[in-house]
Amino acid sequence: MLTERAIEKYILEKEPYYLPVGNEIELFTAAYQAKLPVMLKGPTGCGKTRFVEHMAWRFKRPLVTVACHEDLSATDLVGRYLLEGEETVWHDGPLTLAVKHGAMCYLDEVVEARKDTLVLIHPLTDDRRILPVEKRRVVLEAPDEFQFVISYNPGYQSVLKDLKQSTRQRFVAIEFDYPPFDIEVAIVAHEGQVDESTARDLVTIGQKVRNLRGHGLEEGVSTRLLVYAAQLIRGGISPVSACTVAIVNPITDDRDLQRSIQEIVTTVI
Amino acid sequence: MLTERAIEKYILEKEPYYLPVGNEIELFTAAYQAKLPVMLKGPTGCGKTRFVEHMAWRFKRPLVTVACHEDLSATDLVGRYLLEGEETVWHDGPLTLAVKHGAMCYLDEVVEARKDTLVLIHPLTDDRRILPVEKRRVVLEAPDEFQFVISYNPGYQSVLKDLKQSTRQRFVAIEFDYPPFDIEVAIVAHEGQVDESTARDLVTIGQKVRNLRGHGLEEGVSTRLLVYAAQLIRGGISPVSACTVAIVNPITDDRDLQRSIQEIVTTVI
Amino acid sequence: MLTERAIEKYILEKEPYYLPVGNEIELFTAAYQAKLPVMLKGPTGCGKTRFVEHMAWRFKRPLVTVACHEDLSATDLVGRYLLEGEETVWHDGPLTLAVKHGAMCYLDEVVEARKDTLVLIHPLTDDRRILPVEKRRVVLEAPDEFQFVISYNPGYQSVLKDLKQSTRQRFVAIEFDYPPFDIEVAIVAHEGQVDESTARDLVTIGQKVRNLRGHGLEEGVSTRLLVYAAQLIRGGISPVSACTVAIVNPITDDRDLQRSIQEIVTTVI
Amino acid sequence: MLTERAIEKYILEKEPYYLPVGNEIELFTAAYQAKLPVMLKGPTGCGKTRFVEHMAWRFKRPLVTVACHEDLSATDLVGRYLLEGEETVWHDGPLTLAVKHGAMCYLDEVVEARKDTLVLIHPLTDDRRILPVEKRRVVLEAPDEFQFVISYNPGYQSVLKDLKQSTRQRFVAIEFDYPPFDIEVAIVAHEGQVDESTARDLVTIGQKVRNLRGHGLEEGVSTRLLVYAAQLIRGGISPVSACTVAIVNPITDDRDLQRSIQEIVTTVI
Amino acid sequence: MLTERAIEKYILEKEPYYLPVGNEIELFTAAYQAKLPVMLKGPTGCGKTRFVEHMAWRFKRPLVTVACHEDLSATDLVGRYLLEGEETVWHDGPLTLAVKHGAMCYLDEVVEARKDTLVLIHPLTDDRRILPVEKRRVVLEAPDEFQFVISYNPGYQSVLKDLKQSTRQRFVAIEFDYPPFDIEVAIVAHEGQVDESTARDLVTIGQKVRNLRGHGLEEGVSTRLLVYAAQLIRGGISPVSACTVAIVNPITDDRDLQRSIQEIVTTVI
Amino acid sequence: MLTERAIEKYILEKEPYYLPVGNEIELFTAAYQAKLPVMLKGPTGCGKTRFVEHMAWRFKRPLVTVACHEDLSATDLVGRYLLEGEETVWHDGPLTLAVKHGAMCYLDEVVEARKDTLVLIHPLTDDRRILPVEKRRVVLEAPDEFQFVISYNPGYQSVLKDLKQSTRQRFVAIEFDYPPFDIEVAIVAHEGQVDESTARDLVTIGQKVRNLRGHGLEEGVSTRLLVYAAQLIRGGISPVSACTVAIVNPITDDRDLQRSIQEIVTTVI
Repeated sequence: MLTERAIEKYILEKEPYYLPVGNEIELFTAAYQAKLPVMLKGPTGCGKTRFVEHMAWRFKRPLVTVACHEDLSATDLVGRYLLEGEETVWHDGPLTLAVKHGAMCYLDEVVEARKDTLVLIHPLTDDRRILPVEKRRVVLEAPDEFQFVISYNPGYQSVLKDLKQSTRQRFVAIEFDYPPFDIEVAIVAHEGQVDESTARDLVTIGQKVRNLRGHGLEEGVSTRLLVYAAQLIRGGISPVSACTVAIVNPITDDRDLQRSIQEIVTTVI
Repeated sequence: MLTERAIEKYILEKEPYYLPVGNEIELFTAAYQAKLPVMLKGPTGCGKTRFVEHMAWRFKRPLVTVACHEDLSATDLVGRYLLEGEETVWHDGPLTLAVKHGAMCYLDEVVEARKDTLVLIHPLTDDRRILPVEKRRVVLEAPDEFQFVISYNPGYQSVLKDLKQSTRQRFVAIEFDYPPFDIEVAIVAHEGQVDESTARDLVTIGQKVRNLRGHGLEEGVSTRLLVYAAQLIRGGISPVSACTVAIVNPITDDRDLQRSIQEIVTTVI
Repeated sequence: MLTERAIEKYILEKEPYYLPVGNEIELFTAAYQAKLPVMLKGPTGCGKTRFVEHMAWRFKRPLVTVACHEDLSATDLVGRYLLEGEETVWHDGPLTLAVKHGAMCYLDEVVEARKDTLVLIHPLTDDRRILPVEKRRVVLEAPDEFQFVISYNPGYQSVLKDLKQSTRQRFVAIEFDYPPFDIEVAIVAHEGQVDESTARDLVTIGQKVRNLRGHGLEEGVSTRLLVYAAQLIRGGISPVSACTVAIVNPITDDRDLQRSIQEIVTTVI
Repeated sequence: MLTERAIEKYILEKEPYYLPVGNEIELFTAAYQAKLPVMLKGPTGCGKTRFVEHMAWRFKRPLVTVACHEDLSATDLVGRYLLEGEETVWHDGPLTLAVKHGAMCYLDEVVEARKDTLVLIHPLTDDRRILPVEKRRVVLEAPDEFQFVISYNPGYQSVLKDLKQSTRQRFVAIEFDYPPFDIEVAIVAHEGQVDESTARDLVTIGQKVRNLRGHGLEEGVSTRLLVYAAQLIRGGISPVSACTVAIVNPITDDRDLQRSIQEIVTTVI
Repeated sequence: MLTERAIEKYILEKEPYYLPVGNEIELFTAAYQAKLPVMLKGPTGCGKTRFVEHMAWRFKRPLVTVACHEDLSATDLVGRYLLEGEETVWHDGPLTLAVKHGAMCYLDEVVEARKDTLVLIHPLTDDRRILPVEKRRVVLEAPDEFQFVISYNPGYQSVLKDLKQSTRQRFVAIEFDYPPFDIEVAIVAHEGQVDESTARDLVTIGQKVRNLRGHGLEEGVSTRLLVYAAQLIRGGISPVSACTVAIVNPITDDRDLQRSIQEIVTTVI
Repeated sequence: MLTERAIEKYILEKEPYYLPVGNEIELFTAAYQAKLPVMLKGPTGCGKTRFVEHMAWRFKRPLVTVACHEDLSATDLVGRYLLEGEETVWHDGPLTLAVKHGAMCYLDEVVEARKDTLVLIHPLTDDRRILPVEKRRVVLEAPDEFQFVISYNPGYQSVLKDLKQSTRQRFVAIEFDYPPFDIEVAIVAHEGQVDESTARDLVTIGQKVRNLRGHGLEEGVSTRLLVYAAQLIRGGISPVSACTVAIVNPITDDRDLQRSIQEIVTTVI
């Protein structure tokens, strides 16, 4: 009755579009070869997930992504027994699946997960590289190709959601930020399918909005939202309307901030 | 023993009454065509739900609505196994149902939901447009017609219930407010089945009451309550009594505020 | 093995004793005819529950009453599967029962319920008038006779237990207070089976005690407690003793307030 | 496999020793005859439980006692289905048992129970006198002999554990305190099996210790502890040692207060 | 498949080593004969558990010990149904086991247990001496030999973990402290198998360390830790090293306090 | 269907690389011979886990390691019944497994575990050395070879996560810190496979960074991270880049601290 989720489904078929910003590809490759777990730090929507997809494609590894949340437990990651007919049948969780097949395992926004999840990964992220599956009484050893990646947004973590030192100090950490101007223009033009001039305007708006950080704005506008605006413009919406619904409205509820951003939009366009 | 809830039941049969206020129909249509998820922001009872119904009818898509609440979990949305006789049988949750059938999925008051719900929708609301159903070991890809909509009332969100930037920056956001005077008069007359003069009085009261926001009133009176008052008047209740039970009493327990609103009522009528 | 709780059991056989105070019967009737949900606001023991019983009797509708509490969940209201022998069997919850049979459904002290309950009733209390029963994959449409009533005591709600505007603005709200002197005397005499002079004394005490509200007393003495005192007097207890155990002792633990109320008692009797 | 707990087991066979202090027996009798629920207010160990046992014996009613605690749920009181072999079998909870057999039902320290318990008893404690057993789809009507009693210690209730007015105003409330000197001497002599002179000393100590309330002592020493001291003295322990372990040590951990109480002991004995 | 845990396993076979400090044996014996429950108050590791073992051996009663913790529920103590094959089978909890066999039941660190546990023991600790086993519908009467003992460390209880007066006033309370010098020397020499001179040094250190209480040290060093130090010395570790790992390091993380204690060690040895 | 996890799998096959710093091997050996439980105190990544592995290898004991977390319950440690086909089958938890086979049981970061876990180990860590397995009604006696070890990082424990005195005073405590310069150089060179000069630079950086503790840095850089940096350098990454991603980025999100650490790096290299 169940459709078995074969690990092949996790292999990316075509190259994910990714423009490198610095030496992140070299660093990730060295960590992969030294079998060190990697932590990606940076704001929302700046390309961390795309980078992981790109690296998985490069190494021809299946990519198992887990969006972490407050109720994500160790059991969700490792697996559980489910009743099927009259028998309980074991179902591998995504982490077990990834370890078994030497996949790349990516825990997105890892601080959102429950603490037991974070401790669970300890034996997998030091030189032991093992995953104890208590409920099946087995200890899985990760093959050399297995790569563990987590992402983490240091910008808006509360004290309660900070990563513990005993977790942090198990990772090589690569820092991300919004791409530099020319690269972001190329991304917006490519993904939003607009001409370079429109992309240029949108990235100019994006950079000016990001300067409002520290002046009431929690976080800057992501590359993704700039792409959204481009897509709406391409769909026939006027540039100002597109920027309003894709940039001004989503990132804040504060009327004054909205007005400031709206002014940036009308100044640029 | 179970009545299967066929997806056809979710198709709206007749056009929901909706008067457009600005370019919201064009914006929503462009987002739909660019396959971008949409967030509707605005106060309670200003027409967000009706607008979604209207758009679902326009695109001839089934509409799957979920009223979010504090105990709404990812499992509630995705589905679960239930024991039937001697076998456990999988039951699709509303989100899975909507993805499978390319429906419009509307999460009403999304901030009320548990955090795991909000993270669950991440892979569905970026360019991957996938829904991992962990318990069935399948990953569903949303068809092009699938449209994801959430609503959000920025007026009375506490800090605890704010949307995270990593969630917000996945949506095109259209802002709603109470309709302009003439449109609201038309709505109240149509839905309350009263003459235009009575509708005009009720909307006048509505607008004056909304001016009390910031003077102790948490939120203005909704179009819905104005329609209630109209319906009671049509049912033979005196206009003042109708306004008392449909406007004054529901929106506040504060005696002073109640008196101020009552005065507005008696001044207008 | 189970006694089926037929809906007929919920039909009131004899007219519940109720003395109207204002136009509450007309207002409720108009709301019933316009199919609008009703909220009753007022202090404990002032007759809200009796009024609902009376209206159910008038409209010849079964009355399904639910006393809300902190653990009352959506599941409790809608229904659940229970194991019977080797099969799981669906049991309708009280709300489902009421919707199916077009009954009057009364949620007493609705703010006590969990938040998911309050959101659950949203689609039932706007013009959709539907109840989605997720676990059975059906959507019930309420028949025209279905009437939804909630009660709410604004006197001692904490901020945490306030009703949300998105819930409030779905109801026509009728306000209740303790009955006027002559009506309360009639009630106490009728229900306590004492002569009018004794009833008059007790209501006089009741009204004086209610004046202590705002002077340390959280809430006034209810009509019910006055009836209790009358019943004890009729049972042979001296009026002062009866008032002590039925009025002074129940409503407060504060020694000073108890003394003040005791003085009121001895002054009147 | 189970020993059925017949209701006869709850009938008290011999008269529980109880010395009345005031008109509490008359008041309780009148409430019983008028079918009013009763609340007993007073400090720990002053005889509330014994009084209820005495009244149950007087009316020849079975007595079903429930010691309330934070995890006592409505389900615990009403009953639940349990798996027996291949069938689920219903087990009446103590409240259901008491209602069915017209017993006296005594909820000891009712404020300790969860809020759902307190709301559950509402329909049983107004003129409806019914107990809805949702899970069995039946509504039990209490026979005339059914008597509902709760106890409540106003001395150390925190704000969080106060009884709600909507619960309080359903009860006739009889207040208890430690017995007057001569009566307590008789009790201690009778229960501790010591001579009157020893009992007199112990009660003298008890009364002096109770005067320390408000001077750091949370609650006075109970009659029960005085009986304990008497029993130890009768068992051959010296009076001072007996008072130390039965009075000084149990009621406080505060060294200074212990010294003060010890001084009272040595002064009297 | 299960090994039945016969009550005989709980009978102590050889006399537990215990040196009496005062009249605690007489007091406990008198309480046992008068069937009064006993509370032992005192700091960690001062001999409370050993004393209970000794008394159980004296009275030839099986000893059922329960280490209380935050998740210890009433069910854990009383028992539960467990699925075995196709039938649910009842398993007595330790308290039920002890009541049935007239054992000595010892709840260690009782304040750690959940509140329902503390209320559960109320009917067992007053003159009723009964244990209602709700789930089996039986009420067990404790035989005369049944003895109930709890321990309690008043030193570091927070307000949240204080014992309620209604619980406290059910017990005879015997207070414990660290043994006097000569007795503790004898204990350390006997249990640590060192000569008297070494034991004397260790107890001297222990007493000096205990004087630091109130100067930053939460609790003094226990007799048990002095025995540990003796055992390490006997195992060939130098006295200073033994004291460092058995005394200085375990009792505090504070560097300054550690230095002070280390100085005490080097001064004495 | 299950792969039985034989205890032999827990025996370490080759000697774990460990350079002793002081007399920790002698102390642990003496504790092992005296059957005393051991607590290892020290910062993250300083070699505690490796030390335990080394000792287990020395004594030829299987090593059962448990990474503690907030949801680790007593049941997880002791074992549980799981449904297999039609029968429930008992599965030993890691603690039960270790006790049965006289293994070394290591609870890593024990303060993270739930309180019931900490109390559970009490009878195993005093002279009783027993593990009650309540659910199987057996009491296991630990064989002489059984050794219990916990680790504890006093550096960043909050008040809420401190170990209770009644737990602490059951352990001999060995304190750990980062290794002295020459030993750490040897470790980094050996594990990172770099020449001594590079290792020397990295340890110099490590020691300077550790001096920032108390100047905003929560915890120093671990030996593990220095090894990571060495491994990246060996993999072809420039020393500065390697230090950035292996030292600067992981240990802090603070931009100023990151700059200070970066300066240390560039000064040394």
